[in-house]
Amino acid sequence: MRIAVVQTNPVFGQVGSNVREAVSLMEGANADLFVLPELFNTGYNFVNKEEVEHLSESVTGETFRAISGLAKRKSCYIVYGFVEKADRLYNSAALAGPGGLIGLYRKIHLYYRENLFFAAGNMGFPVFDLPLGKIGMMICFHRMYPESARTLALQGVDLIAHPSNLVMPYCPDAMVTRCLENRVFAATANRIGRENRGGTDLTYIGKSEIVSPRGEILARMKEEETGVSCVEVDLAMAQNKRINEYNDLFLGRKTEQYRLS
Amino acid sequence: MRIAVVQTNPVFGQVGSNVREAVSLMEGANADLFVLPELFNTGYNFVNKEEVEHLSESVTGETFRAISGLAKRKSCYIVYGFVEKADRLYNSAALAGPGGLIGLYRKIHLYYRENLFFAAGNMGFPVFDLPLGKIGMMICFHRMYPESARTLALQGVDLIAHPSNLVMPYCPDAMVTRCLENRVFAATANRIGRENRGGTDLTYIGKSEIVSPRGEILARMKEEETGVSCVEVDLAMAQNKRINEYNDLFLGRKTEQYRLS
Repeated sequence: MRIAVVQTNPVFGQVGSNVREAVSLMEGANADLFVLPELFNTGYNFVNKEEVEHLSESVTGETFRAISGLAKRKSCYIVYGFVEKADRLYNSAALAGPGGLIGLYRKIHLYYRENLFFAAGNMGFPVFDLPLGKIGMMICFHRMYPESARTLALQGVDLIAHPSNLVMPYCPDAMVTRCLENRVFAATANRIGRENRGGTDLTYIGKSEIVSPRGEILARMKEEETGVSCVEVDLAMAQNKRINEYNDLFLGRKTEQYRLS
Repeated sequence: MRIAVVQTNPVFGQVGSNVREAVSLMEGANADLFVLPELFNTGYNFVNKEEVEHLSESVTGETFRAISGLAKRKSCYIVYGFVEKADRLYNSAALAGPGGLIGLYRKIHLYYRENLFFAAGNMGFPVFDLPLGKIGMMICFHRMYPESARTLALQGVDLIAHPSNLVMPYCPDAMVTRCLENRVFAATANRIGRENRGGTDLTYIGKSEIVSPRGEILARMKEEETGVSCVEVDLAMAQNKRINEYNDLFLGRKTEQYRLS
């Protein structure tokens, strides 16, 4: 199957044109699963909660309609980040498929000023059993918490879809460790561009990437390009946790020797 | 305080000269804590269990006497790996100080053919509160299990002493992630050289390194040199888990959302 990361350059607050940019990039590509960046439709660098509220949507809002329409036309799956308006405001990722909405993930580990704007996710780390394999989602800063990818991998995911807005240079390499330690695939979709708003100046580093369970960087985009990067993978490879004839990474966990509470 | 990694080139089975090489390197350096490689006194690539048995020592054996003698003379602490002969045979690391033996760690996650030769560690991940800071130990392959460093960090260690025999090229970078995600220092001491024995041909990659809680590589040795690399650090820096005004990495753990059993 073909997995793709979509690297975009959203303009803050321009939801309509940001969604059109992403849809246009995906229209021109061929993949079974596309992963888009965190908050790909709104931009990231909010100044206050009113902006967040103003740009929020229900999970079946206009962004969903555009994305799920494409998923239906192309008969594919799409993971994308957006501001979810529900009982509270969440930094969420949705999974859309040919038949509509499949699942939702709400960011649990909020980074920096996100703590002012969003409620922390309250749905754990759900896993979705698709025809192409088992998929889980985590967003951006979760790469810093090994428990995030571990929780997904222990529930059997083959691939972690990882919408991101990366700023720090070491972020892409961290995902190599996450894939190696869990023997899973990861598709990290990042944005590019700069947002200098309200005294906070952020430049996003691109480098969207797809990493294999062996830690191989199957695709890594450049810092300043937009586009789609696809790789052909066999997701079932992630189900085998043996790294040699004596070591199965997961059977080898010694939970009785850990102290993780 | 000054932390040092010692990169050696042991000859298989030549315990006396291997220990003398390491002692000589440390005699010529100045540090409060030295970390030596895994199995630095014996070499690593055992062919059968009889060899392991033959080269094993009690925790207060000849290697300990040489190392602890140096620790007393130089008034320093030394972590080193050796084959421990106890109720069973363990791939262990000992911590010696000016007053003698301080602690022991038995490798929990055995790699590849080590599973044929050693019993898995059964002492958890002990933490030692030294005048220079809180120190824990893990050995080589433990870098692959995020639970190892996490268990140590949650118990408050400032520095992970990490005796290793690294072969794979991605190993040193994995420790950057371990330090970042736990905000701790790590001192990874690796060996160099090649051991082609019994049909298994291993080349060790050197690159001993000291990494800061911010993921900075404070020292990284070359692939083919022996020697000592020292850095001056403030270990107390590891006690601060705040990465910005909104995020404390450890307070931000959402244990109720993880599934790690």
